[in-house]
Amino acid sequence: MYFGDTAWFPYGEKTEEQLRARAEQIAAWLTEQGVKVIVIACNTATAAALEHLQTRLQVPVIGVMTPEAHAAVQATRNKRVGLLATEATVRSGSYARMVHAHDAGVRLISVACPGLAPAIQNGDVFDEGIVEMVREYTAPLREAGVDTTILGCTHYPMVERLLRRQLPGVTLISSGEELARELRDSLRRKDLLRTGGDEGTYRFACSGDPAAFRELGSRFLQMPLGEVVRALPGPPAA
Amino acid sequence: MYFGDTAWFPYGEKTEEQLRARAEQIAAWLTEQGVKVIVIACNTATAAALEHLQTRLQVPVIGVMTPEAHAAVQATRNKRVGLLATEATVRSGSYARMVHAHDAGVRLISVACPGLAPAIQNGDVFDEGIVEMVREYTAPLREAGVDTTILGCTHYPMVERLLRRQLPGVTLISSGEELARELRDSLRRKDLLRTGGDEGTYRFACSGDPAAFRELGSRFLQMPLGEVVRALPGPPAA
Repeated sequence: MYFGDTAWFPYGEKTEEQLRARAEQIAAWLTEQGVKVIVIACNTATAAALEHLQTRLQVPVIGVMTPEAHAAVQATRNKRVGLLATEATVRSGSYARMVHAHDAGVRLISVACPGLAPAIQNGDVFDEGIVEMVREYTAPLREAGVDTTILGCTHYPMVERLLRRQLPGVTLISSGEELARELRDSLRRKDLLRTGGDEGTYRFACSGDPAAFRELGSRFLQMPLGEVVRALPGPPAA
Repeated sequence: MYFGDTAWFPYGEKTEEQLRARAEQIAAWLTEQGVKVIVIACNTATAAALEHLQTRLQVPVIGVMTPEAHAAVQATRNKRVGLLATEATVRSGSYARMVHAHDAGVRLISVACPGLAPAIQNGDVFDEGIVEMVREYTAPLREAGVDTTILGCTHYPMVERLLRRQLPGVTLISSGEELARELRDSLRRKDLLRTGGDEGTYRFACSGDPAAFRELGSRFLQMPLGEVVRALPGPPAA
């Protein structure tokens, strides 16, 4: 059950209070749908609302950042890890804290990438402008000699091949993949993992225009989304 | 390559400075032996020296606590987790910090268990005194209705069956097992996991009397230890 808060996009411009209230609304709606666990698949929302939801809901809530930080520490051999993320994420210092909680000896080289997520969201990912951006943003990581890099934004895996060419030999840690592992391990330990070999079903909802969401979502997820329900439209934030 | 610092036992009476200096000595000796990763398999030493070693050595250093805290958060369904540990470990608050870093909504019920580790180290684990101790120490966990409990000391899994009878239906998280998982995942991600299906070889060393170590170690590990080397005896701390 996927909810995309497209009517409220972008989160980066909202206050913490607005994001917490919105996260509570969305979580209540997901709980009504009968979900057994909630994943906050967004850095900004995780920073603003993860602890808030964890202390208020009975259903487990998992956020980004912790799983990737853990995976990066496990993967590095030279103790130099890169981070590519939005300005807000780098500024929050959350990744640095989580990396050091797992290994105080790992050096994190953080690079804020203004414009990269919006360029991916809006445009052609083979655009020359994006190639130039990626070249520029990865330069400090090449200089520092990192052997591992966290893609600290849900959009960046869309340009993974571009990144890979600019960071040869570097292990790329993708937030989606690490979150999925954490979710699987967590459900298995709780004995809540569904059995049966089929793929399961997907349901999609968004707060904005369902047709626009279906178009973008199909491209991101590389699958037809089927029906997209409109839910929790609410007023766009003032 | 296992090193048991039996000449310095028990660590609980040493200062942080003494433990850090000693940990550095041991780590230098292990590095000379050519180890590819160092595990600090002791709560007291982890609390005193983990960050110290991580920031000073090139070889990765893994400690206890973080892996068990993570596993407990993954396993709990009712968000109530118990901790059985030594007084020093409970007092340090490390488990509570790590549990809340992974899920701010999980309540940790910590029980200090004075006398339990020494009783296991010294005596017959089917002793009536140990049964009574375990009954007393697990009472607060039964009252709190925990569904998961961390065995926060390397000695406690030796009395796992006693614990299991006193905590029916509770998932027990054992530090050794979680450390082993973390180590395997870490070596795999670093591409340092040895290939080949055989069991590998074991080498044992200790700072105290090798014969006494061999006797206790065989019981703990349920295997014959073979030759035990004496290393780093040094003076017992003043």
